[in-house]
Amino acid sequence: MARTANTFTPPVMAAFRWLEGLEFSPDHPLINVSQAAPVESPPEGLRRAIAEAAMSEGDAHLYGPVLGNDALRAELAHWWGAAYGGALEPGNVGITSGCNQAFCAAIATLCDQGDEVILPTPWYFNHKMWLDMNGVQSVPLPTGADLLPDPERAASLITSRTRAIVLVTPNNPGGVEYPAELVRALYELARERGIALIIDETYRDFDARAGAPHDLMTDPDWADTLIALYSFSKAYRLTGHRVGAMIASPARLAEAEKFLDCAAICPNQLGQIGALWGMRNLGQWLAGERAEILERRAAIHAHMPALAREGWSLMGCGAYFAYLRHPFAESSDALAPKLVREAGVLLLPGTMFTPAGDPMGARTFRVAFANVDRAGIGALAGRLAGLGWPLAPAPASA
Amino acid sequence: MARTANTFTPPVMAAFRWLEGLEFSPDHPLINVSQAAPVESPPEGLRRAIAEAAMSEGDAHLYGPVLGNDALRAELAHWWGAAYGGALEPGNVGITSGCNQAFCAAIATLCDQGDEVILPTPWYFNHKMWLDMNGVQSVPLPTGADLLPDPERAASLITSRTRAIVLVTPNNPGGVEYPAELVRALYELARERGIALIIDETYRDFDARAGAPHDLMTDPDWADTLIALYSFSKAYRLTGHRVGAMIASPARLAEAEKFLDCAAICPNQLGQIGALWGMRNLGQWLAGERAEILERRAAIHAHMPALAREGWSLMGCGAYFAYLRHPFAESSDALAPKLVREAGVLLLPGTMFTPAGDPMGARTFRVAFANVDRAGIGALAGRLAGLGWPLAPAPASA
Repeated sequence: MARTANTFTPPVMAAFRWLEGLEFSPDHPLINVSQAAPVESPPEGLRRAIAEAAMSEGDAHLYGPVLGNDALRAELAHWWGAAYGGALEPGNVGITSGCNQAFCAAIATLCDQGDEVILPTPWYFNHKMWLDMNGVQSVPLPTGADLLPDPERAASLITSRTRAIVLVTPNNPGGVEYPAELVRALYELARERGIALIIDETYRDFDARAGAPHDLMTDPDWADTLIALYSFSKAYRLTGHRVGAMIASPARLAEAEKFLDCAAICPNQLGQIGALWGMRNLGQWLAGERAEILERRAAIHAHMPALAREGWSLMGCGAYFAYLRHPFAESSDALAPKLVREAGVLLLPGTMFTPAGDPMGARTFRVAFANVDRAGIGALAGRLAGLGWPLAPAPASA
Repeated sequence: MARTANTFTPPVMAAFRWLEGLEFSPDHPLINVSQAAPVESPPEGLRRAIAEAAMSEGDAHLYGPVLGNDALRAELAHWWGAAYGGALEPGNVGITSGCNQAFCAAIATLCDQGDEVILPTPWYFNHKMWLDMNGVQSVPLPTGADLLPDPERAASLITSRTRAIVLVTPNNPGGVEYPAELVRALYELARERGIALIIDETYRDFDARAGAPHDLMTDPDWADTLIALYSFSKAYRLTGHRVGAMIASPARLAEAEKFLDCAAICPNQLGQIGALWGMRNLGQWLAGERAEILERRAAIHAHMPALAREGWSLMGCGAYFAYLRHPFAESSDALAPKLVREAGVLLLPGTMFTPAGDPMGARTFRVAFANVDRAGIGALAGRLAGLGWPLAPAPASA
């Protein structure tokens, strides 16, 4: 069986197919909260920086180093070191064609066929898909009502084949920001057991907390255990430009270079130029973006009482995501296409983020609210509250 | 052992390290014939098309479809169908972040751990590296003095685990253009044995022959067997923009979509915009580029008599590459760093394209001549002819 036969269809592509053949009237437009991506363009200055590089003759059109351009590696190392209280060198940073690719490269440096990687559930589906396609077993670490992984339960899942624990914080799909002490506990566990801790920090720029979200990089030996992944896409609205990063030891990046040389040769130059311009010029602007996201998050909370009266509950809310428990009898994967047709709402069912048969997946939805302004969040809440579908039977324990 | 530990360091990166600490005087500059890449910028119109898209607000900054933008898929399908006499639909084309990634995706749709893929040697190193990192055995198919694979020998290598034969034509590193009948014979072999034929046509635009280089797509069922790979990088000088393509059945592309969703999410938008503009506007310009490359190829031939007097021979010459047999006693991998230091010539040793211990690798070099004009080719030939190193002992059979 080919590697791709071992996994499922990309969920966002699958969800877009629910839209086929449907039309939405201007007075009842589709509310699309399926994908975690800015839909507005980057600021004009950044666009101009890319355009000028595109117009010029020179390096912007040529292959660059496999691990990315020196200037961007140095800028991110400096910035990350300052933000996390660590001493990072440019050699600790590899630039990738998006953060998904950084995850792929990290796994290639850690795992072989038959190895295991621990993923808290609900998980990020592309992590699960990549492990499937690499013959690496995803070991689910179920979370509870707070969506936080339990270090003791994680410890109980480690075997001789375990190579890494993967965290996403702020979490996709759950929206929760992992407390620094929890991240530290999982790091200590990984270090003691000689495995890696991968932290995907794609949504770090929208964390509601002040200061560093964890203190791991204050350890001089952090790179023996920790691999951090970052995306420039969300901060600077560069999703279409494919720029991410892997932050690790130089030795691990030398291994990742083999993978990236085959899968990409190099990250595209214009995306790197945009990311560098963004880092150097958009700090203030990004603070405003974060404030807007935090207001949208507040709008989700503000609408929850009305939704709660209809039986909904909010399990997690932060960065780009709200993770909602629904009140209906049907499973979320059956409900999601109905929601498109009957309510004009496109969101992803929890089943796309959980192992087959997982009860949490059937009862939950991910709402990627970052693209919807406060009025839109109100409209979304109104549509969800007004569905009038058959409610789930009361649990036996109630 | 991690997957990356199963393969070697990227050869071009390794070769660049031979330059460290060296300085070259203006009257004896480095002649770098190590990498197959244009070093000039794309034409102004293409640069402007990218710059205008970058400056605009809109889709150019957003995620696109995993398999690429509809317009580019349709354009390449139309163009390829016309060039190869086949009926291609847009659904036969997937856009990738470069042609290397297209190979990675193709392998993911074909192979699992322990499978085998037949590669004529000398092989393209990134193919070998990717198979290594995927637990797929590269089965070498040695070629002879003409650098052409023998279908009967290929047939003898097929086992129950064989999933594909991979051709690169015009060949990297060998420069040879595979005759259409040879490609057809290998295709028939693959079809009869129920395996895939992958043809990497990265250098197709610089083939010296008129018309289609093979007739496989005139078969209505071509997509049951054939996977063609293409790069926009060489034709339109887009190496830094990372755009390639995989041409296959829609069913295979649906499988490839899983891989690409994880490894890339989507090809970057500006590169796709540049590639589309190039296809629509640069046909005449590309014909001129091809003519220039063919003149450089002729220059290689013109300088061979002087090199032959020093014991060199030309095994293959076409598209971007000449493949040279050297006369020296040492192995090519020992000679290559010496060539940098003592002659100011950077090229890749045949050992980077062959299995360990392969006698052809030790005796050969790849010259990527596309970046060197006729005067530069003359200078290169002069430096190689004047080395004065110990010659290889005469073979025992002589």
